[in-house]
Amino acid sequence: MKKFEEVIKSIEKVDEDLLARAKRRIDGLNKPVGSLGMVEDLAARLVAIQKTKFPDTSKKTMFVMGGDHGIVEENVAMTTKETTRIQCINMTKGLTGVCAFVKAAGADLKVVDVGIDYDDLPIEIVNKKVKMGTDNFTKGPAMTRNEAIQALEAGIHVTIEAYENGSRVFGTGEMGIGNTTPSSAILSVLSGLDPDEVTGIGANLPQERVKHKANVVRKGIEINQPNPEDPIDVLSKVGGLEIAGMAGVMIGGAYVGAPVIVDGFISTVSALVACRIEPKVREYLIPSHASMEKGARIASELLEFQPPLNLGLRLGEGTGASVMFHVLDVAANMNNDMVSFEEAGFDKL
Amino acid sequence: MKKFEEVIKSIEKVDEDLLARAKRRIDGLNKPVGSLGMVEDLAARLVAIQKTKFPDTSKKTMFVMGGDHGIVEENVAMTTKETTRIQCINMTKGLTGVCAFVKAAGADLKVVDVGIDYDDLPIEIVNKKVKMGTDNFTKGPAMTRNEAIQALEAGIHVTIEAYENGSRVFGTGEMGIGNTTPSSAILSVLSGLDPDEVTGIGANLPQERVKHKANVVRKGIEINQPNPEDPIDVLSKVGGLEIAGMAGVMIGGAYVGAPVIVDGFISTVSALVACRIEPKVREYLIPSHASMEKGARIASELLEFQPPLNLGLRLGEGTGASVMFHVLDVAANMNNDMVSFEEAGFDKL
Repeated sequence: MKKFEEVIKSIEKVDEDLLARAKRRIDGLNKPVGSLGMVEDLAARLVAIQKTKFPDTSKKTMFVMGGDHGIVEENVAMTTKETTRIQCINMTKGLTGVCAFVKAAGADLKVVDVGIDYDDLPIEIVNKKVKMGTDNFTKGPAMTRNEAIQALEAGIHVTIEAYENGSRVFGTGEMGIGNTTPSSAILSVLSGLDPDEVTGIGANLPQERVKHKANVVRKGIEINQPNPEDPIDVLSKVGGLEIAGMAGVMIGGAYVGAPVIVDGFISTVSALVACRIEPKVREYLIPSHASMEKGARIASELLEFQPPLNLGLRLGEGTGASVMFHVLDVAANMNNDMVSFEEAGFDKL
Repeated sequence: MKKFEEVIKSIEKVDEDLLARAKRRIDGLNKPVGSLGMVEDLAARLVAIQKTKFPDTSKKTMFVMGGDHGIVEENVAMTTKETTRIQCINMTKGLTGVCAFVKAAGADLKVVDVGIDYDDLPIEIVNKKVKMGTDNFTKGPAMTRNEAIQALEAGIHVTIEAYENGSRVFGTGEMGIGNTTPSSAILSVLSGLDPDEVTGIGANLPQERVKHKANVVRKGIEINQPNPEDPIDVLSKVGGLEIAGMAGVMIGGAYVGAPVIVDGFISTVSALVACRIEPKVREYLIPSHASMEKGARIASELLEFQPPLNLGLRLGEGTGASVMFHVLDVAANMNNDMVSFEEAGFDKL
């Protein structure tokens, strides 16, 4: 089991030279230069990340990280912790939103318990439980620094394991009732923006309760005083176990040399944490969809993400990221199957 | 072989009641209401178009309609008619851009010759040739009205045939060197906008030649005086055979009761023609990507399309439409596989 610090130290920068060479090769393929836009950029990125002329996207894994939140005591969510448990179990049976998406993408789905507040979970859920949900961060830290690092390691370890089993592309999703509240708290601290500017309706919270939710975020920040220069401090004081777990998957992807697809608001906040921990992670991340949740656009802008999919999604679970698996398949096919102008018969003209 | 007028008369309105019932059922599935945005709308639309509770997207066909353009004599394209022929042949061998896309989508690819200016085409290209390319429309009409109707029928017939062979979802693409010029001409007439406002670089025409291209469009409209109230008149005087063919696929889809995915600029202009011929076609059409070609946004707005994919594509061939096949698979899975809140175990809470 790799330790967190070792993993962080081993992450390599994505090779700029390889990226440039891949782009040049793609420019010579049988199409007007640049006419496949972002698909060309993604293909070059796959080459540089996987360090191979012909990238492989055939085996993919979507990680749905599950965790509960003490903050739900503060009346910030429309449902209860029981829903986290039920939906994680439903996910292992193919019955929730993300299941429909990963099935279409031909991806494996791994549900990982990083901190679900129940012990009676079926064996199909990967057990990486760090604790029985976070503590209510209006009364003290959500978790200890050590617990946050354990949750990061949980994500790193499942990613390394899936890579060893052949997966070459990863996606990040989550299930954790209440988790837009810690996401807004992390974003507020890391962006310096007021909680009102980064707090939204989450899973259909009535608009009149959003102000209360933002005040809960404000109180959590005031009580815990997270240090914006120390992302792990922010994560532990006002974050969540599954949020840390997703950041761990992103760090793990960078470590093994595999692209990791970022989903919506919560996942983008995880990406922000991962990139503040180690900026080299950024170039391994693939944005997917523009979530409708308030705060998502701000988090994306901080990372210079331009998510290409505008499907109006705000479910989470990794739904938007799953659609992007398909776009990576397209990019790999484009790179691997298309021929040069010469091979296409244009040298005879 | 169905005649054009018969087909048009038989097209039914998409059933609003079925659409509303499908939406209500989707609202009761195991997710916050509306949280899957456009995927929910697409799922309901699939139900209403296919008239079945559980839509089937498993078999799909991408039609790439091929045609040549007399207008290339006017120096409006970067390459020659020979490229249309070479690329259509390459397409049957899996070597062009769209091939990479349809492979990822699991769709069949049919290349249809509606008016390629060569006779030596391989048997893999479906022969629906109406004529050996259009005539130069700065010197007279691109084709006769009867030829335009034959090209529309070509699209209708291949669609009916594919439907009879099990395809339940269709996509539209094209290969025809020079075809952004007639597309701009059609759009200028049907929108009432000046050629300068709807003429762009196409396949990498240098910006300094775009003004010339717009003037060619202007001259064609002045000489032929197409009637904006008569879409077939516009199509025949300043259009293209493959543009008519794609409009035919869209009309054919509406006739058999199958969704047809619209691609980029040229395909969206075809959609505009199809919907001006028979407005009921509109509700069978699925927009896909926001093409980078000037004019694409204007054509989309006229149709009230909001294409969800921003991949920076401007290749044509049906590349953007092919990505949307995947999104329809996702929508069908969502509708067909997800369970209700009750079935998900929430009735016990």
